[in-house]
Amino acid sequence: MAVYTHITNDEIEALLEGYDIGHLRFAVGITQGVENSNYLIECQKKETVSKYILTIYEKRVNADDLPFFLGLMQHLSQQGFACPVPVPTHEGKLLTNVQSKPAAIVSFLEGHSKTQFKNAHLKALGQSMATLHLAAEDFNMTRDNNLSLAGWRLLSDQLGTKLDTILSGLSGAVDKEVSWLERHWPAGLPRGIIHADMFPDNVFFTGNQLSGVIDFYFACEDFLAYELAICMNCWCFEPSHEFNVTKAAHMIRGYDDVRPLTDREKHLLPILARGAALRFLLTRAHDKIHHDAAALVVPKDPMEYWKKLLFHQQVQSVAEYGI
Amino acid sequence: MAVYTHITNDEIEALLEGYDIGHLRFAVGITQGVENSNYLIECQKKETVSKYILTIYEKRVNADDLPFFLGLMQHLSQQGFACPVPVPTHEGKLLTNVQSKPAAIVSFLEGHSKTQFKNAHLKALGQSMATLHLAAEDFNMTRDNNLSLAGWRLLSDQLGTKLDTILSGLSGAVDKEVSWLERHWPAGLPRGIIHADMFPDNVFFTGNQLSGVIDFYFACEDFLAYELAICMNCWCFEPSHEFNVTKAAHMIRGYDDVRPLTDREKHLLPILARGAALRFLLTRAHDKIHHDAAALVVPKDPMEYWKKLLFHQQVQSVAEYGI
Repeated sequence: MAVYTHITNDEIEALLEGYDIGHLRFAVGITQGVENSNYLIECQKKETVSKYILTIYEKRVNADDLPFFLGLMQHLSQQGFACPVPVPTHEGKLLTNVQSKPAAIVSFLEGHSKTQFKNAHLKALGQSMATLHLAAEDFNMTRDNNLSLAGWRLLSDQLGTKLDTILSGLSGAVDKEVSWLERHWPAGLPRGIIHADMFPDNVFFTGNQLSGVIDFYFACEDFLAYELAICMNCWCFEPSHEFNVTKAAHMIRGYDDVRPLTDREKHLLPILARGAALRFLLTRAHDKIHHDAAALVVPKDPMEYWKKLLFHQQVQSVAEYGI
Repeated sequence: MAVYTHITNDEIEALLEGYDIGHLRFAVGITQGVENSNYLIECQKKETVSKYILTIYEKRVNADDLPFFLGLMQHLSQQGFACPVPVPTHEGKLLTNVQSKPAAIVSFLEGHSKTQFKNAHLKALGQSMATLHLAAEDFNMTRDNNLSLAGWRLLSDQLGTKLDTILSGLSGAVDKEVSWLERHWPAGLPRGIIHADMFPDNVFFTGNQLSGVIDFYFACEDFLAYELAICMNCWCFEPSHEFNVTKAAHMIRGYDDVRPLTDREKHLLPILARGAALRFLLTRAHDKIHHDAAALVVPKDPMEYWKKLLFHQQVQSVAEYGI
């Protein structure tokens, strides 16, 4: 939960003068989002009342990446993909400034995230993922994934033996896993823009219908199948940390319906899943080790991803993912 | 800012089954409110979409007081006073439970708070205050003000020399002020239910029109004019800590239009204003001294009310408040 930058209603009203979305009805600081400050605002233009999210970007976001993120959301929505749409200023800019920080207003996406899922939700998730990948194909900007192989090595070396404060022996095990992935990480798989953070928090439903995807601030270019590998980690384990093959099968089938996976993509899923588990293990470990007690955010548990990594390590074939 | 109790959308949907307000469209944890956890929720019943606030009461609120607070809001709204209206469950109860804590759903009040005010806003504030006092006259519950004279003595004694960590010599000055107020605090002024926390955060406007008042969790029985004294403190000083006589005059005149003040109430305002300044000085000092660095809320500055107290101490007559 977080609002790091405080802005008054009067300041928001002044900000809205730069936009064509009417006057402020109300604004509330919202606790969703750990990286930035977010306000839900409702505006009225003539008879039309609309909700928006005002995001003030804090230091964890690289300001140079913002045109990519906002441009991607604009592009995807133009292709018919349901996601927040950046609202341009009178001058046509997607970025503005609040208290010397970059800020943007995006449309409010109807629906809400869920925590309990049926197979139909997983199938819709897979379809949405593939739809996003296809819709992003002709987007003319790109961004490297700095949280891929080279980033894991960097983080693993930086954290070093501090990892052992989380679990005895973790630094050695992580180092071994990074080395293994350096030897086995594939090349030549279909690449494109991926969301890279499609956690259940970021996927909205209305009833059982997937209504859209939010939070594109980790989007980057990578193997398309790596997105599936991330979602196998964050959608297909039970709270008991047991892998749910049925959920994975529905998700992968949903994806395959929209963008058929190559045999090689399917075959390499276990390796991609190990990489994805390691990625979240490392960033969560980093956030926990560097956690400021006075911070507004409770760090997430890295051990959850250690357990997931152990599962993927013992996977013998992609059949164990329900394919 | 605060959300202490985390509740998922699925849990909110389950909670809504106990109410007659339809199904959940979305919910966001909001950062307003320092005492409790608050969620803005939007529900749909047939074609009607309505917003509500779900409040989960945290330990700072005495659960025994909740029937008074919720009953008061219900009573005031029945009298036509604009404030959040508690929504009853199917069984007609205003209180429910979330994760073993008391919780309530109230209607969302249109409008928003402001930080920059014109005289017309102050006049409307005074009118609203008096309207609240009259509307509460026949409310059949009551609650003592535990933050009046006896409470100030208790807090002052408890904090003792810890006050000197805020300002050298503050403990002696506060003790002297409490003693002075013990000798001069009036008796026999018109009493009734007051809001007791009508800070600008808690008063909503649409345009220049006052749209209603929120946050009744300090409401209690006390001198009606003490409400004016509180609002002189929190509405009538400039950011430079200078008293704005014009604003005070408009506020008092607005009040007097709806409920004429007695000469004695007017005459005693300087003493009531000293008490009100001391009350917020003491509770802010308490919150600052006992502040947990890991808490989600930044403590407010007690010195602001020390400066206000110094102003009221040198007031010679009520004319200095613009009467």
